Amino acid sequence: MKFASLNDLYLQQLKDLHSAESQLIKALPKMAKAARNPDLKNAFIEHLEQTKGHLERLKQVAEKLGKRLAGHTCAAMKGLIEEGSEWIGEDAEAEVMDAGIIAAAQRVEHYEIAAYGSAHTYAELLGEREVARLLSETLEEEKKADAKLSQVARKINVEAKAA
Amino acid sequence: MKFASLNDLYLQQLKDLHSAESQLIKALPKMAKAARNPDLKNAFIEHLEQTKGHLERLKQVAEKLGKRLAGHTCAAMKGLIEEGSEWIGEDAEAEVMDAGIIAAAQRVEHYEIAAYGSAHTYAELLGEREVARLLSETLEEEKKADAKLSQVARKINVEAKAA
Repeated sequence: MKFASLNDLYLQQLKDLHSAESQLIKALPKMAKAARNPDLKNAFIEHLEQTKGHLERLKQVAEKLGKRLAGHTCAAMKGLIEEGSEWIGEDAEAEVMDAGIIAAAQRVEHYEIAAYGSAHTYAELLGEREVARLLSETLEEEKKADAKLSQVARKINVEAKAA
Repeated sequence: MKFASLNDLYLQQLKDLHSAESQLIKALPKMAKAARNPDLKNAFIEHLEQTKGHLERLKQVAEKLGKRLAGHTCAAMKGLIEEGSEWIGEDAEAEVMDAGIIAAAQRVEHYEIAAYGSAHTYAELLGEREVARLLSETLEEEKKADAKLSQVARKINVEAKAA
């Protein structure tokens, strides 16, 4: 049986996250480029560096577990990025474009919050304390990135309304 | 210009939600069927009824705004459901299957929390008080559905660990 225990599901969730972060590293520069507001552009540039760190942590996890996490494709992140790319291609006023980019990015952040939440729970249950700590660090950064986007959105949404 | 103002983005977000909820109404019975734990099965059956109510609210919103919301496809929800369907097709122990279904469902809930969060913010900014109230009701139900899944997961994850 392919998934006989929680440990098998745990590994599959880590593979899903590895794919999600890898896809995101390719997508974030496009979001940064499409953003017109400097604060938003900077938020994406900063989050790209953070995301590279998240992938690095997953590589540490892979090494610690002696498992290969690369090679899987996260279908949900593919869909989320496809949605973001569609939006970036639309004809929109600068402030409206930015507001829509934030809406797409917050969906991505929420995907990651849910996914890291599950993986972290499994790591704790399986007594993988060091992995749980690494996943928890990333989870907190994803929550902060989402809050930062909400903060930037407050100003941009008002500007988009006045556009 | 297709997206000249926040109002245009607001409508697009409502169309996205209309598609997401419609896709989910088709997917939830499959998740309910695949779930082995009776509490989890019931949680999906209840959430299906709730989701039908969410689509109903969006139809009320469409009528109130005098706009058509149907006809768009939410690519992200398509990916999220594809991921859930892949999982349901896997060969897994009953408790591990259930734990994985919960992980997939919580990703869906988080997508909706982010999406309703943006749409609700726009409705408030645009002074659409009645729409904002309807969206806020759904948003609260999605948050509760996510919390309910976390609660059911506590028992199922422990069982999956012992599988």
